[in-house]
Amino acid sequence: MTVAQLNPAEIREMTDPAEIRRAIRTGPHTGHTGGLARGYVQANIAFVPADLAGDFLRFCHRNPKPCPLLAVSDPGDPSLPELALDLDMRTDLPAYDVFRDGELAETVNEIRELWRDDLVTFAMGCSFSFEEAIIAAGVPLPHVDRGGRPWRYNSSIETVPAGPFRGRMVVTMRSFTPADAVRAIQITSRFPRVHGAPVHMGLPHLIGVNDLVAEDKNGNGPMPEGQIPLFWACGVTPQLAIENAKPPFCITHKPGHMLVTDRLNASLAAF
Amino acid sequence: MTVAQLNPAEIREMTDPAEIRRAIRTGPHTGHTGGLARGYVQANIAFVPADLAGDFLRFCHRNPKPCPLLAVSDPGDPSLPELALDLDMRTDLPAYDVFRDGELAETVNEIRELWRDDLVTFAMGCSFSFEEAIIAAGVPLPHVDRGGRPWRYNSSIETVPAGPFRGRMVVTMRSFTPADAVRAIQITSRFPRVHGAPVHMGLPHLIGVNDLVAEDKNGNGPMPEGQIPLFWACGVTPQLAIENAKPPFCITHKPGHMLVTDRLNASLAAF
Repeated sequence: MTVAQLNPAEIREMTDPAEIRRAIRTGPHTGHTGGLARGYVQANIAFVPADLAGDFLRFCHRNPKPCPLLAVSDPGDPSLPELALDLDMRTDLPAYDVFRDGELAETVNEIRELWRDDLVTFAMGCSFSFEEAIIAAGVPLPHVDRGGRPWRYNSSIETVPAGPFRGRMVVTMRSFTPADAVRAIQITSRFPRVHGAPVHMGLPHLIGVNDLVAEDKNGNGPMPEGQIPLFWACGVTPQLAIENAKPPFCITHKPGHMLVTDRLNASLAAF
Repeated sequence: MTVAQLNPAEIREMTDPAEIRRAIRTGPHTGHTGGLARGYVQANIAFVPADLAGDFLRFCHRNPKPCPLLAVSDPGDPSLPELALDLDMRTDLPAYDVFRDGELAETVNEIRELWRDDLVTFAMGCSFSFEEAIIAAGVPLPHVDRGGRPWRYNSSIETVPAGPFRGRMVVTMRSFTPADAVRAIQITSRFPRVHGAPVHMGLPHLIGVNDLVAEDKNGNGPMPEGQIPLFWACGVTPQLAIENAKPPFCITHKPGHMLVTDRLNASLAAF
């Protein structure tokens, strides 16, 4: 790409999701999307060939907490008007992970050359939306303040399989004082389409996590004293299911490099 | 009283709250009301002389979790039509605790002789309502099955004082598997007028409870393995505040011997 990268301050000044998508589509932004377009839904994405799309759709329906479906395209259609009218799914993610036979083969910034007439787009809710609601309620999320990511674990919780898609649930962990933990459960319960309420709390060993520091995929340190760990289903779960299913060809967003949509987070609140 | 007591099976067969109140008013039932009139709100009651009623009302408003007000009477009026049209507060509780100078002076089955023209009735929501909602959702509450009471503690949480009314918050504890604990928080969040969401969870030492077994006022054993303790504000809190305030005269219901009302529990759901 010949277009200069935007620096983080420039991209962070943009508040219009369409403007951010243009910066992604035309090249200047290839970085992660955390903290961008505050107030707007960002989505986990998977592109699955039509012959496996029925299985993957059933996998999402059977596992709504890790795979909360926001929109599904027709085969070969790169638009997704439910999430934004101008979307071109071939260019509008900052980075794509391409899987061949279940192995990560390459990471690219657009997939115009890789696009196929049988690819079905799956857009799933992401925790950025509920983190924004938690912060708006005055409950601290220190990892967001420091531009980091929550604790992340491969749990022992089995997903419900569908066709070749199966595997353990990936979970994120955020820790809170007890009173804030109650609030965080209330707040995220309002947002079932972006992972919803926690799937577990306290007692990490009951979901196969025996060392909160050593097993964290995101390299956070120990949890603060006097706090409770809450565990949410994570949108990385479908990528693990894809690795297990080993489809000949499949594409996902690169973790953290999400689709920025025109939907307001507030529009997803269930009550 | 000359009327024969009803046996537990007879009273438990009654499903109409008005019929149960008649059995209480006319004498045959002087026992506790747990498990009676399922589906209907039961209430914690305090009768406070008018000169202190303003302070007590402010105490309830400042501490809505332990003292969720359902209804307040005019001074000297023994009816409470918000909760049932036929109520006579002088006869319709199975047992009354009479306090003089903040000390429990006597326990009686009616207060017609003790009634005064300046007494104000305060009716506050009770955990029976949210326990019913928890059970209806398929979440086990073993103490209810065995006719017992939840764990109960005097916590270190300070209430917000009003006039002479002040003191620590009394809390009840119920323990759950982690997934059921999330559900129990969601369910009780719907019922702010019957104590609402827990005030604390896990980490009992943070609210001054250092031994869950030894400090339990209700004599339950240890919590099951693999469970999380959730703590709710308890309707015994106002009785502690009354003991601290030492009003010359005051009456409450005897713990567990609640007012049975005509209001449906479901009518209290906030969403």
